[in-house]
Amino acid sequence: MDQFTFYSPTEFVFGKDMEQQCGSYVKKHGGSRVLIHYGSGSAIRSGLLDRVKLSLEESGIYYVTLGGVQPNPRDTLIYEGIRICREEQIDFILSVGGGSCIVSAKGIALGVPYQGDFWDFYGTGKPVECALPIGTILTIAAAGSEGSGASVVTKEEGMLKRDTGSDLLRPRFSILNPALTQTLPAYQTACGATDTMAHVFERYFTNTKEVEITDRLCEAILLTMIKETPRVIADPDLYEARANIMWAGTVAHNDIVGVGRSQDWNSHGIEHELSGLYDCAHGAGLAVIMPAWMEYVMHHDVMRFAQMAVRIWGCEMNFACPEATAREGIQRFRMFLHSIGMPINFAELCAREEDIPVLVEKFGLGEGKTGGFVALSSADIAAIYRIAAHASL
Amino acid sequence: MDQFTFYSPTEFVFGKDMEQQCGSYVKKHGGSRVLIHYGSGSAIRSGLLDRVKLSLEESGIYYVTLGGVQPNPRDTLIYEGIRICREEQIDFILSVGGGSCIVSAKGIALGVPYQGDFWDFYGTGKPVECALPIGTILTIAAAGSEGSGASVVTKEEGMLKRDTGSDLLRPRFSILNPALTQTLPAYQTACGATDTMAHVFERYFTNTKEVEITDRLCEAILLTMIKETPRVIADPDLYEARANIMWAGTVAHNDIVGVGRSQDWNSHGIEHELSGLYDCAHGAGLAVIMPAWMEYVMHHDVMRFAQMAVRIWGCEMNFACPEATAREGIQRFRMFLHSIGMPINFAELCAREEDIPVLVEKFGLGEGKTGGFVALSSADIAAIYRIAAHASL
Repeated sequence: MDQFTFYSPTEFVFGKDMEQQCGSYVKKHGGSRVLIHYGSGSAIRSGLLDRVKLSLEESGIYYVTLGGVQPNPRDTLIYEGIRICREEQIDFILSVGGGSCIVSAKGIALGVPYQGDFWDFYGTGKPVECALPIGTILTIAAAGSEGSGASVVTKEEGMLKRDTGSDLLRPRFSILNPALTQTLPAYQTACGATDTMAHVFERYFTNTKEVEITDRLCEAILLTMIKETPRVIADPDLYEARANIMWAGTVAHNDIVGVGRSQDWNSHGIEHELSGLYDCAHGAGLAVIMPAWMEYVMHHDVMRFAQMAVRIWGCEMNFACPEATAREGIQRFRMFLHSIGMPINFAELCAREEDIPVLVEKFGLGEGKTGGFVALSSADIAAIYRIAAHASL
Repeated sequence: MDQFTFYSPTEFVFGKDMEQQCGSYVKKHGGSRVLIHYGSGSAIRSGLLDRVKLSLEESGIYYVTLGGVQPNPRDTLIYEGIRICREEQIDFILSVGGGSCIVSAKGIALGVPYQGDFWDFYGTGKPVECALPIGTILTIAAAGSEGSGASVVTKEEGMLKRDTGSDLLRPRFSILNPALTQTLPAYQTACGATDTMAHVFERYFTNTKEVEITDRLCEAILLTMIKETPRVIADPDLYEARANIMWAGTVAHNDIVGVGRSQDWNSHGIEHELSGLYDCAHGAGLAVIMPAWMEYVMHHDVMRFAQMAVRIWGCEMNFACPEATAREGIQRFRMFLHSIGMPINFAELCAREEDIPVLVEKFGLGEGKTGGFVALSSADIAAIYRIAAHASL
């Protein structure tokens, strides 16, 4: 196991109706002037926003609101949020929504105390040195942003999707009420599940030897997702299955299952160009890319893919030909994604094979290579897009 | 899944030689006058204590030392520690040792700012309202105290073993260097592994339905322990296996795998009377008690024990007779414990069947019942001691 530090100071508050206590949690964590940051009208229509406001009022907390976060959140709204926070002397950001809403709030949080352009931190590795505290009320189990220090934002000019991360961006508290996810349409539910599974797979494929504990923990999350996701696709109101998926989504991405091992986030990076260009859902893009990436890099460590096939997908080990087991595991992953309504190739995602050179160009690797499991060149990435374009069951 | 809050703010610092940075971590977490609390002479002989002192000196931190923590740490040393901390105006306790050393430090930490007797908090449920901050340098993977808010202390007068817990007792940082555990004798290594496994089983046997995510995470830890423990018993110097065991021990007990489900800590409670009376190792006592407890309560939920047998111990499911599978799982657990050198009955633990009435009396249940999975009476507890007395392979 490699050297690591692990720090996850977020207070997680899990259960029905917990959002009604958000005012006291904001207070406990030092907030007195709050920006409520939310996404679509559904938070208004469902009455959630009203419950949040009521709880803040009961705690005597001043607030202003900023809605309109889109999937693949944009820099433009973040500039607007930074301006409002400065004008209103906001000292706490409360994000009410899914991952997009939370990562947008993180962008505002790091931008407010920073003199320059908040975008300086994205895709550059520039370390965050100061940020407003944030809290979250999660409405979509997917991104894991409620427990992570990561943020991904799209710059409207050129539709560039870039990320940043810092322990300072980890929420002070996150309220997880699985019932809030019950209104989510099946497609978005499946996108979220795919994202959670991808977060685990990006950690699972590693070159670090002898990492049994984190291997097993990764497998635990994936087995849970495989059991529970089809249940909520069939019946969106299954609270218990929603609850399992919600906690799985958090644990998948606060890095407790990924510490001490090399990770490989190329599938996320390769996908970002798809959702950046076509504005498709991140999870849907991952469903197309991740199995393609697996097929392309499989020969780097066939036994690890065979392990995935046996332990996660329940394949019989083919001892004479481990590669056959490995391939079967990848194909079962694809079949699973199809079964929950995810696209599995470019056509189903409404992406175009002829755009591959544009996607590779936007990825911006040039002559370089990237990857923690298998280092990929621009040509490799083009090849993965081509596999993804033509995948079938 | 039940409602819960989960808060684990400890900064974990994992890897070789990390103890050499303890001074900067004490400083980062606000300490300037430190009590170094340690156990036996091994911390001196190995040079660990010198490395710790050097690091504190390099950070310009004042320290005093208090050694001599015993397994099943005693109240007497805690009184001594509280006196020293008050006299020396200590503002941070650095525990260098295993679980006993850490829980002793927690006793001191809550006692220093408290006007009354620190023992008031033990076995009473009295909430801790203030405590000195602590940090740990872990030398035994076992108790999980490095990531938990729990403390168990033995009152010398009457050898009463009682516990307390609070988020305020969670360490600010914990340094985990697996190499420090390589000098541990096989017997203590096995005791630690048994303790870790027990922490998971106490969470695994639950009456809460549909807790797939935490079930699977529990199983992940147990599968890891089953793989890695025999390896380090055979070869104590296997750093990687020690590393897996060490992180497993932490994750097993910071409650991330136990949230949202009823738990049952009766095996720990029943064992505490054994180590309280005979001063045996806690892990060794658990090896004798836990399978006996399982046999006694098995009929409450045979399918859960069958699940344990199949998923954790690799038994074939006997679909015609799940009880047979359940029994096989428990017996495999006992065989595993025997294989790593643990006692499996009273004789091997040097406990006496004729003391059972004394043990039950000290347990102090009277006419009451206790237990989150199966509520046990004093008669039930006596029966479990009797099963434990006579267990065989």
